[in-house]
Amino acid sequence: MATKYYLEKISENIIFGGQQMRFRHESMALACEMTFSIYIPTKAKNTKVPVIYWLSGLTCTDENFVIKAGSQKYAEEHGIAIVCCDTSPRGNKVPDDPDASYDLGLGAGFYLNAIQQPWADHYHMYDYLLEELPELINQNFQIDGNKMSISGHSMGGHGALSIALKNPDLYSSVSAFSPICSPINCPWGKKALSNYIGGNSQVDFDAWANHDVVELVKKSSIVTKNSMPVLIDQGNADNFLKEQLKTQLLIDVAQKEKFPMNIRYQEGYDHSYFFIASFIEEHIRFHSKYLNKEHSYEK
Amino acid sequence: MATKYYLEKISENIIFGGQQMRFRHESMALACEMTFSIYIPTKAKNTKVPVIYWLSGLTCTDENFVIKAGSQKYAEEHGIAIVCCDTSPRGNKVPDDPDASYDLGLGAGFYLNAIQQPWADHYHMYDYLLEELPELINQNFQIDGNKMSISGHSMGGHGALSIALKNPDLYSSVSAFSPICSPINCPWGKKALSNYIGGNSQVDFDAWANHDVVELVKKSSIVTKNSMPVLIDQGNADNFLKEQLKTQLLIDVAQKEKFPMNIRYQEGYDHSYFFIASFIEEHIRFHSKYLNKEHSYEK
Repeated sequence: MATKYYLEKISENIIFGGQQMRFRHESMALACEMTFSIYIPTKAKNTKVPVIYWLSGLTCTDENFVIKAGSQKYAEEHGIAIVCCDTSPRGNKVPDDPDASYDLGLGAGFYLNAIQQPWADHYHMYDYLLEELPELINQNFQIDGNKMSISGHSMGGHGALSIALKNPDLYSSVSAFSPICSPINCPWGKKALSNYIGGNSQVDFDAWANHDVVELVKKSSIVTKNSMPVLIDQGNADNFLKEQLKTQLLIDVAQKEKFPMNIRYQEGYDHSYFFIASFIEEHIRFHSKYLNKEHSYEK
Repeated sequence: MATKYYLEKISENIIFGGQQMRFRHESMALACEMTFSIYIPTKAKNTKVPVIYWLSGLTCTDENFVIKAGSQKYAEEHGIAIVCCDTSPRGNKVPDDPDASYDLGLGAGFYLNAIQQPWADHYHMYDYLLEELPELINQNFQIDGNKMSISGHSMGGHGALSIALKNPDLYSSVSAFSPICSPINCPWGKKALSNYIGGNSQVDFDAWANHDVVELVKKSSIVTKNSMPVLIDQGNADNFLKEQLKTQLLIDVAQKEKFPMNIRYQEGYDHSYFFIASFIEEHIRFHSKYLNKEHSYEK
């Protein structure tokens, strides 16, 4: 029997004719109160609409994308809802990094299920995003739960790509801005995985590789490779490109594994939301191509 | 002899191909250090471009519009620069409201020249916007100083409209979102004017009326009425509409005085930047019509 979720509305604003709303709810997956934002286009007054889940990067909440990306205009044009989740569990009972660094703990959930303490009681962003949040969204809004795509930025780009690659039947398409392409090979990823999963990339390779986009590409089926539409934009003036994001590793493995991803370097752009704002129109148009047709998986 | 202004660049990001930059400088008009933001479209690589000055509302800085309005796409399309100024003088030596309210002192300069202490030494936003800032901008960027328009939100809508009406030859067009239409008739305006100018609207009517858009419409020349393009958008779900903004007073006086302003109520929209984002494309297109032609004043 489906759980009935209780939502408390925090705010509602009209933008480009649609509704930009923010809600609070009790999350069972995360064992804390969570907040999310949702844009509902006017088309939803007459019919159920497809949805894009947006995953933000380190230090963000559900609000950054809503305020800075300018996505609503294109969501309205294509008749697509956009759900923005938070980047970690929240609240007094949720443990944070004792050093209060920006890249571990609150604001840095990495969209995985932590199995090591003190994180394992709350840090289950993977379950939250895969099961609880869509169920709640589909129950409460005019959303067609069979038409979902997923996108994100930086840590959220890692989240979107890894979640889609592990669940190719669930998503019509996936895109990312400036994703962390290989957590097992960069400082942000190593710090997160050694804390949330434990161990290191040698001894615990399989456990770590399960959260690594480059490794997940190697494990993808031929069907997934031929049917999952992937669009990635990466600014070549991004300060994090070489040490943390390692886009070239993904380009190389996609080529080797014959996974036809559309990965584009964008001249002069950095890691900021100014970059996202510049290309969000193209990303929403890309998702719309697959969300707004009968057979979502044809490339 | 023109003063040479020294600018310190705080940040630069590429967005929609153009440059979004932020600068610090010493202001003589305000006797303090000031910060402004400027968007330079790619067209400025080849030729001087027109400019829109944007004035934000209470509590804002130069950054709110840059981050939230989504204006850069349209500024780039029309080849127009956008300068965003701060909303008051800033710094330790600048007096603030002793009660630290949001509607007086820092963040609430009202775009006028204060003549009463403790404000009179720094609060000269009118002189800053009319003289110092354009001179600085024209010196340092590829801007055609003869093609300026002005726009703003709330307190900044009052600023844009009152400055344009007092200087109709300087601006090709003026627009506003949710402007404070009659400071002498609303709590925000009465508090600002009684502090910055002194007295009250009865005894000091002329001094107060000089900062009131409704009164300035009455004093406008026939030439101004027939040549100054004015566009105003106002959400009808704006919580401040009746008590503070009083749009109807401006509609009534414009009609009575035969000043053909285009004042539009927008159904369901509130006072937020979500409203501005929804209509900024139309405002920039409106200004472009006058900035990007030879004879700016033909309606």
